[in-house]
Amino acid sequence: MNLQAIYHRPKSNFCYAYDENVIHIRLRAAKGDIKKAVLIYGDKYNWEKRQELNMKLVCSDDLYDYFMVEVSPESKRLAYYFKVEGGEGEFYFTEWGLIKDIEEKEVYLHFFQYPYMNKEDIHKVPEWVKDTVFYQIFPERFFNGDTSNDPDELTEWGELPTSGSFYGGDLRGIIEKLDYLEELGINGIYLTPIFESPTNHKYDTKDYFKVDPHFGDLETLKELVSKCHERGIKVILDAVFNHCGYFFEPFQDVIKRGKESPYYDWFHIRKWPIETDPPSYDTFAFTYRMPKLNTSNPEVREYLLKVARYWIEEADIDGWRLDVSDEVSHDFWREFRKVVKEAKKDAYIVGELWLDAYPWLKGDQFDAVMNYPVMRALLQYFAYGNISDSQFKELINKVRMRNTKQVNDVMLNLMESHDTSRFLTECNGDADKLMMAVTFLLTYEGVPCIYYGTEIGIEGGHDPDCRRTMEWNKENWNLKLFNHYKKLIGLRKQNKALRRGKFEWLDNIEGVIGFTREYEDEKVFVLINNSNFDKKVTLEVNGIYVDKLTGDVF
Amino acid sequence: MNLQAIYHRPKSNFCYAYDENVIHIRLRAAKGDIKKAVLIYGDKYNWEKRQELNMKLVCSDDLYDYFMVEVSPESKRLAYYFKVEGGEGEFYFTEWGLIKDIEEKEVYLHFFQYPYMNKEDIHKVPEWVKDTVFYQIFPERFFNGDTSNDPDELTEWGELPTSGSFYGGDLRGIIEKLDYLEELGINGIYLTPIFESPTNHKYDTKDYFKVDPHFGDLETLKELVSKCHERGIKVILDAVFNHCGYFFEPFQDVIKRGKESPYYDWFHIRKWPIETDPPSYDTFAFTYRMPKLNTSNPEVREYLLKVARYWIEEADIDGWRLDVSDEVSHDFWREFRKVVKEAKKDAYIVGELWLDAYPWLKGDQFDAVMNYPVMRALLQYFAYGNISDSQFKELINKVRMRNTKQVNDVMLNLMESHDTSRFLTECNGDADKLMMAVTFLLTYEGVPCIYYGTEIGIEGGHDPDCRRTMEWNKENWNLKLFNHYKKLIGLRKQNKALRRGKFEWLDNIEGVIGFTREYEDEKVFVLINNSNFDKKVTLEVNGIYVDKLTGDVF
Repeated sequence: MNLQAIYHRPKSNFCYAYDENVIHIRLRAAKGDIKKAVLIYGDKYNWEKRQELNMKLVCSDDLYDYFMVEVSPESKRLAYYFKVEGGEGEFYFTEWGLIKDIEEKEVYLHFFQYPYMNKEDIHKVPEWVKDTVFYQIFPERFFNGDTSNDPDELTEWGELPTSGSFYGGDLRGIIEKLDYLEELGINGIYLTPIFESPTNHKYDTKDYFKVDPHFGDLETLKELVSKCHERGIKVILDAVFNHCGYFFEPFQDVIKRGKESPYYDWFHIRKWPIETDPPSYDTFAFTYRMPKLNTSNPEVREYLLKVARYWIEEADIDGWRLDVSDEVSHDFWREFRKVVKEAKKDAYIVGELWLDAYPWLKGDQFDAVMNYPVMRALLQYFAYGNISDSQFKELINKVRMRNTKQVNDVMLNLMESHDTSRFLTECNGDADKLMMAVTFLLTYEGVPCIYYGTEIGIEGGHDPDCRRTMEWNKENWNLKLFNHYKKLIGLRKQNKALRRGKFEWLDNIEGVIGFTREYEDEKVFVLINNSNFDKKVTLEVNGIYVDKLTGDVF
Repeated sequence: MNLQAIYHRPKSNFCYAYDENVIHIRLRAAKGDIKKAVLIYGDKYNWEKRQELNMKLVCSDDLYDYFMVEVSPESKRLAYYFKVEGGEGEFYFTEWGLIKDIEEKEVYLHFFQYPYMNKEDIHKVPEWVKDTVFYQIFPERFFNGDTSNDPDELTEWGELPTSGSFYGGDLRGIIEKLDYLEELGINGIYLTPIFESPTNHKYDTKDYFKVDPHFGDLETLKELVSKCHERGIKVILDAVFNHCGYFFEPFQDVIKRGKESPYYDWFHIRKWPIETDPPSYDTFAFTYRMPKLNTSNPEVREYLLKVARYWIEEADIDGWRLDVSDEVSHDFWREFRKVVKEAKKDAYIVGELWLDAYPWLKGDQFDAVMNYPVMRALLQYFAYGNISDSQFKELINKVRMRNTKQVNDVMLNLMESHDTSRFLTECNGDADKLMMAVTFLLTYEGVPCIYYGTEIGIEGGHDPDCRRTMEWNKENWNLKLFNHYKKLIGLRKQNKALRRGKFEWLDNIEGVIGFTREYEDEKVFVLINNSNFDKKVTLEVNGIYVDKLTGDVF
C-alpha cells in the first residue's frame, strides 16, 4: 500500500457540511491501491454507538482514487476515522496516520472530527444559479443601441479592435437585443464593467457610483435589469475592487496633496510624490493606471461595501463577478459576502480566479469562481487534441475534487473569456471541435457561461482581439453552430437532470467519452465522440430513451 | 519517486505569510525520496524575471520529508512552482501535479500562488505570549483565601475530590499565593471558569457578567489582575461560549415560556416542553445541564461578544481560553477575534482543541490552541516509554508541520489539564520521568503551561481526581521536582533563545534526544536522556558553553 498517498483533512474539501443535515467525507489514496475503505463514525461523547459505512470509489485522476460517503449525524457532531484495506491487510487511518491498532484509552486523540454542524458555517449557494445559462457581454462591443452617447472617435463596427478602440456599444444595445438572447435561450447575463472609466474595458474605474455615460445611465441600467427580469434573465455585474482607475477622485487627490490628502491611506503608496514609471504605489499588474485599493483601511471597505449594496438596491442586480478576486483580502470578501447576502439573500458571488480556488470557496466568501481549470481541460482535449479520453476525464475529476459539491453545482464553467483567446481560434476555426466542447459545457455539472458571439462563430486571439464586435448580419453567422447552441441550451432548460442531476462517468465504453446526469426519475446519457472516426457504443439501459438531438426513440 | 506523496497547497500551512514581508513555503514528499527541491518563483505579471531557490529539508515524520524555504516578494505577489529531483530525474510540480515540461503558453495555468500579501489576512500573534510560562489554576482547589464566601458544605482540604466536592478555593486565595507563583517563576495565569455557576468547575454558567460569589466579586478579580500585572504576570480567563448552564436566565425563561420566550432561539430547542432525559435540546456532550448556545442568532452573538469585551475592559484581563472551541462556529470566532483585539490589541486567544486545529489557526480566529497532540507525544515517550527516540521526534515534527510558524511560536504546550489524568500519575508516580518531560516542555518552541500542583508532585487520575486540592504543606512537597521546575523556568526567562530561538533537532547524536534553540548570538543545546542508562554525547560547538544545570563551563 502506498501509505504516503492516503490523505484526508477535516473541515476542507475532504470533509464538509453539504447542508444542515449532511456531511460529505472524501478519502484519497493512490490509484488502484486500496480494495476497500470504510468510515467508522459516531458521536465522540457516545463512541460506543459508533457505526461503519462502506465508502464508494467515486472517481480517479492520474494519480489518485477518491472515495466518498455521506453521513447525517443526529447530534450534529461527527467523530470518525477510516479502515482501509490494501495488499498488506487492514489499517486504521486516523489523525495520526496509518496504524494497525488504536488503543481504546487514547481513541479520543485519534479522531478526525467535524465537531458540530453550525448553521452559519455551512455554504449555501443560490438555487437559481443551477438553472441558469450565463452569457458574458463586453458591452462596448455588443450593440450600439444609442448613438447619442457614443465616444468621440469610433472605429467602424466590424473592424478588428486595437487596445484603444471604441465602437459605441452600450446598455441600450443590450436592451434592444434581448429578443436575440431570449431566442438563444440564455437566462443570465454577466456584464464586464459598466461604471465610469476612460477605457473601453472599464477595468479602471473613475466613479463606482455612476454608469459610464457612453453606456447609459442609472435609468438605462434599471431598465435593462427590469426587462431582463421580465424575461426571466438574471443580471450580474463586474466588481473591480482590487484596484481603481488613475482618475478615481481619491487617487487624484493623493497625487495632488500627498499625505495631506484624507485618501492617502486608501492606497498602498510606497513613495510620494507619485511617480508612474515605474509606479510608486502598488497596482494591478504593474499598470500605473490601476492603483491597488487598500482594503485594510476601514474607510475603503465601507466605501466598496456601499458600492456593492448600492447596485443591488438601486438597480436590482442579481450578483457580482469579482475582478482579480484573489489579490483582495479574504477578510474583505467575508464582510462583502455578509453585506451582499443581506441586500439580496440569493445573490450570486463569483470570483475571477484562475487557480485552485478552495481557500475562497469554503462558504464564507464566494459561491463559485470562473472555472479556468475546466477551460484548460477543454482546450487540451477538444481544441488541441493533445490528451487522451482518459486524461481528459482525469483532469476533470481532479478539478471536481478540489471543491465541495455545492460549489461544483454553481461553478461558472467557461471555455474562454475577455481575458483569453477565443476557443474557436484555439481550434483553428474548426467549429466541429467547438461544438463538441460546448456540448460538454452545456451538459456538465455547474453553470455554463457563453462568451458573446462564440455561438455564431466569432473568432479572436488574445486581448484585444478576443473583444471584437458582435456580428449582427445573419449572413455571416455559422448557423449550424448557432442552432447547436440553441438546441443544447434548450435541452438543458427542459431537463432538470442536466441542471441538477448527479454526474457520473460512463466507464464501460470505448473510443468516446460519456457520462450520465441523473435526477429523480430522469436520466440523461451524454456521449461525445472526439475522434475523427465513427464509433458505435452499446449502452445497457432500462425503459424508453429518446435521442434528444435527432428525436429518435429507443 | 513516490509521485502520490508529494503535496503542497497554497494558502494553507504549506504556504502562508509569516509577516508583512515573508512567505513560508513548505513541500512534502515521501521520506528519503527526493534529492533536491527547488522553488521557482516570481511575479506572475513579470514571470520572465523569475528566480530559483533551493529548499531545505527541515524535518521528517514517520512517512514524509518536509522541505521549506522563505521568500520576500517585492511586489507582495507570489507565483511559483517546484522543481524536484528524485531517482527518475527532474519533474516540475505545479498545481496540475508532477509534469516533465511546462508549455510556456499555459504557464499561467500552472502556478501555485499567494496572490497578494494583504495585511489584514496575515496572522499576527501577541509578542508577550512568547515570553510567558503559564500556570493553569482550577480556583476551587488552589487556596481558600476568604472563608467568608465559602459554600455551605465543604470537604476538608486534602481529601480526595468527588465530582460534587467543594473546598472553598477562591480568587483571594490566588492573590494570597502570588508570592508562591512569583517564586516558582511563572508569569501567566490561566484560570478555569470563575463566573457564577452552581458547580465546582463552573463550566455551566449561570451569569456571565458576575464573578461567582464563592470566588469573590468584580473587585476581587480586579485586585487579582492588577496585583498580577504589578508582578509582570498576565491573566487569561476561560470563555465558556459553546454552552451555558441550565440555570442561565434565558434558558430558564425558555423552560417556562417556550416559544413565547424572547430567548427561544438562543438555543437549539428540538422540542418543547423542555425535557432533560434525554435532553430535548442540543447540549454539550448530552449533558442536560449544559444547553448549547445558538451562535447563528445575532442576539446571542451580541451577548457573548459583550461578555468578551466586558471582562477585558472592566478587569483588564489579557486574553481568553475558549472552552469546547471546536463546536462553536468559525463565523462567530471570527467576529470574536475582531472584538477582542479591538478591546486589547495584544490579547491572547487560545482555543481548547484536541485535534489538528489548523482550520481555526489561519489568523482569522485563534492565536493558538491547547497543544494536546504534543501532550500525547510526551505521554508516549516519557510516561509510557512505548515509542522510540526517533518516533518521538517524528510525532513532534508531524504536529509542528500542521501549523504555521507564528502559531507554533505561541502554542499552549501542556502535559495535562483539568480534563486529563495528571502526568505524574500516568508515569506511575515516577517523578524522574515527569522531570524529563517538563524539561522538554520548558525548552521546546511554544508556550509552556503548567497545571497547578504538578510542580510539587500532586497526582490524580481522570476527572474529578485530577482536580485535587493544592498542597501547601512544604513537608509534603517533592522538593527536587519543585526546584527542577524553578530552575527550568528561570533558564527559560534568562535565555531568549529558549523563548524565541529557532528550534532544530540534533540529529547526529545517539541514545538521547537533543535539539538546539538559537536566537541571534545565543545558542542553547538541550539534551534529554530518556533511557535507564548513562549516555555520553559528543557535540561539536564553537565558543564557550555553560552547563546551565550545573554551572560547569566548557
